Amino acid sequence: MKENKIPYKTYLDESEIPTKWYNVRADMINKPAPLLNPATHKPMTAEELAPVFCEELVAQELNTTDAYIDIPQEIVDFYKMYRPSPLIRAYFLEKLLDTPAKIYYKFEGNNTSGSHKLNSAIAQAYYAKKQGLKGVTTETGAGQWGTALSMACSYFGLDCKVFMVKVSYEQKPFRREVMRTYGASVTPSPSTTTEIGKKILADHPGTTGSLGCAISEAVEVAVSTEGYRYVLGSVLNQVLLHQSVIGLETKTALDKLGVKPDIIIGCAGGGSNLGGLISPFVGEMLRGEADYRIIAVEPASCPSFTRGKYAYDFCDTGMVCPLAKMYTLGSNFIPSANHAGGLRYHGMSSTLSQLYHDGLIEATSVEQTSVFEAAEQFARVEGILPAPESSHAIRVAIDEALKCKETGEEKTIVFGLTGTGYFDMVAYEKFNNGEMTDYIPTDEEIAKSLASLPVVEE
Amino acid sequence: MKENKIPYKTYLDESEIPTKWYNVRADMINKPAPLLNPATHKPMTAEELAPVFCEELVAQELNTTDAYIDIPQEIVDFYKMYRPSPLIRAYFLEKLLDTPAKIYYKFEGNNTSGSHKLNSAIAQAYYAKKQGLKGVTTETGAGQWGTALSMACSYFGLDCKVFMVKVSYEQKPFRREVMRTYGASVTPSPSTTTEIGKKILADHPGTTGSLGCAISEAVEVAVSTEGYRYVLGSVLNQVLLHQSVIGLETKTALDKLGVKPDIIIGCAGGGSNLGGLISPFVGEMLRGEADYRIIAVEPASCPSFTRGKYAYDFCDTGMVCPLAKMYTLGSNFIPSANHAGGLRYHGMSSTLSQLYHDGLIEATSVEQTSVFEAAEQFARVEGILPAPESSHAIRVAIDEALKCKETGEEKTIVFGLTGTGYFDMVAYEKFNNGEMTDYIPTDEEIAKSLASLPVVEE
Repeated sequence: MKENKIPYKTYLDESEIPTKWYNVRADMINKPAPLLNPATHKPMTAEELAPVFCEELVAQELNTTDAYIDIPQEIVDFYKMYRPSPLIRAYFLEKLLDTPAKIYYKFEGNNTSGSHKLNSAIAQAYYAKKQGLKGVTTETGAGQWGTALSMACSYFGLDCKVFMVKVSYEQKPFRREVMRTYGASVTPSPSTTTEIGKKILADHPGTTGSLGCAISEAVEVAVSTEGYRYVLGSVLNQVLLHQSVIGLETKTALDKLGVKPDIIIGCAGGGSNLGGLISPFVGEMLRGEADYRIIAVEPASCPSFTRGKYAYDFCDTGMVCPLAKMYTLGSNFIPSANHAGGLRYHGMSSTLSQLYHDGLIEATSVEQTSVFEAAEQFARVEGILPAPESSHAIRVAIDEALKCKETGEEKTIVFGLTGTGYFDMVAYEKFNNGEMTDYIPTDEEIAKSLASLPVVEE
Repeated sequence: MKENKIPYKTYLDESEIPTKWYNVRADMINKPAPLLNPATHKPMTAEELAPVFCEELVAQELNTTDAYIDIPQEIVDFYKMYRPSPLIRAYFLEKLLDTPAKIYYKFEGNNTSGSHKLNSAIAQAYYAKKQGLKGVTTETGAGQWGTALSMACSYFGLDCKVFMVKVSYEQKPFRREVMRTYGASVTPSPSTTTEIGKKILADHPGTTGSLGCAISEAVEVAVSTEGYRYVLGSVLNQVLLHQSVIGLETKTALDKLGVKPDIIIGCAGGGSNLGGLISPFVGEMLRGEADYRIIAVEPASCPSFTRGKYAYDFCDTGMVCPLAKMYTLGSNFIPSANHAGGLRYHGMSSTLSQLYHDGLIEATSVEQTSVFEAAEQFARVEGILPAPESSHAIRVAIDEALKCKETGEEKTIVFGLTGTGYFDMVAYEKFNNGEMTDYIPTDEEIAKSLASLPVVEE
């Protein structure tokens, strides 16, 4: 029987690592809305973006027409360090659930950054190096992106300045040390090293920081330091472009196995993993070649898709970044401190926002205790302790598989397992001790932060 | 050119996972010395070992004649969760070192236990389950073995009681939480739950524990609790047998690539990784079919091979275990608290001890600051942050590659990368802060602990 021939793990050959990124925007009829200048509310030009981002990345950010963009050989070579990543048939999980569903997951955690973030980090570091820059600045929350960027910068001999949300800096010293091992400098944010940091500290003396605040600091240092640019690990179109390697490899592997998925599931914070995973599949949908059910999973405590507004908003707290049209909870929205994992960003990738708005993808939100229940179930049978972020996708994959058990349908479910939870054991400890609780923001809270949206005439 | 065709990562097919373990003792002319009854000094019989170990494992422990032992299908199935592990050509490291040497490493860290320990844990859990036991007890130091055993027990629905060296229990809460996530109970050792623990606490009120002490507690609980047995993650012949999957896969992959190693390097604490990696290669040497240079690398702070004595010794502090003939520093030897990684055991596998005594393998010791320097170099170019234990092998692999650079020799070096260092960031932090120092025990210290050796007439 063919079924039995599908191995637990499918590894593509190194020669099958994609040599072109897929740019889903080229196939979108309704393009994602452009970034706007926060002062003029006019679309940002390449010239305006150049002081912040590397030139080539600006070009990628604005490119809505080329479906495929060559991956430079140096990046493909680096990818060989940890790619192709395995597509895993979750036989053990299927058995545990006793479901007729066939479950697959694309596992991006087999590298020291522990997640898919490295796919874009190495690209962004490469273009910075190519442009002759000295270094880059960035922010990191849970630390996955900062770790990935540190690895990438170390590889190309670039300086890497990371602003780490203060609460994570203090509570996640191990990720900080991984970054330092890769030669990065790590500053808790808000800090006194920037004007915006000083201002935030003066206004909110006891603050433990936020992603939006760390972004503001990183951007300030990038634009005010000779030879530096700012890089971002999610949300941007360029990041989704780089992350398309996830989806391209997934599709190649599934095609080789003769498998067509019914449902594709990914967790969604800023959208980089989900966007990367689904892009070639959405491309097929946009071109009328295939149809899939695509589910974005977000935390109930930070529900930008499911309870946010589709509008132009600030990307950062300091309001120094361009405006992006996206599903957003308002740039003042800060998820409950109770929330254990990542996926804390107030907004969502413009590309994914447009796809969601157009009905190509659906979204659902899940509560963290049920996410950790799924994580534990998964870890015990599949042998991988998943990141809290990734576990959002696991939760919904399990739920869909259990629905199949009820109906008897043999659906094929593919989800993205973005990373490992080895640096998230404080959250697991809470869960193991029965101390984890759920938090769902009230309508009033969301309405309050949405009141800060800029007024933009479209 | 053939050379260029060797990929960065060689993954065997799932069908190439070994279906038999290789028992190097069958090919040894000088068999490893038998375990002795600590009271009578007579070789331990299967009957005497049965209250401590599972029956099938006792049989494997005493089997010095069968070269191959079938791996039960259930274990092979579990191996598919994370095996075959990749054999990686260290192109990036070779480039950094600018060496003509060709460096390969077998990477065992791509599973949540983070190391090779899972290879034996699943086998020991399987036989316990097969025997109808309720659970197993064990000790763990740094936590790799305890984590692996927790995963294996969770898979087979066995209870798992782990005695964790107190200093690690307190300083490595994250590993503890991984074990708990897999359902294990974790007790800091010495504890008041055992007689030996109470005695040790009474004699040494402020003690932070040791492996030898945790072994004594685990054995006590196993022999005094209905339906429980004790399992051990290293040192024993059965463990080396299970770990032969590392070497068998390595050899299959090298053969497929048409590569014959000149030097094989592994770190050595109790010897499970090294023994597993080298067994098929040593088998060839023993049968006169090939010749390799094999190097065991141990920490200068716990140098059992290079400065210990080849003699019968106690395996644990409480002296409840059988006596084993091995290179030992004396069962009272406790490595300096300054020592950052694992590899803290006072003795060494009997099998490896005999091979070393017979000149089939050589040994060297390295200091921890130079080990972490190698670890950092490796992490930055190969993208894997290595465990401190594994980094001992990296240090010597780099040193050998640099010798090749001097001489121009194109030697092929293979080393075992046993695991990742994600739970060892406290040690990396010390290194990053320049606070790590070296410690080499004095001759007097070693002589003092060797004075405790039992007097055994052979």
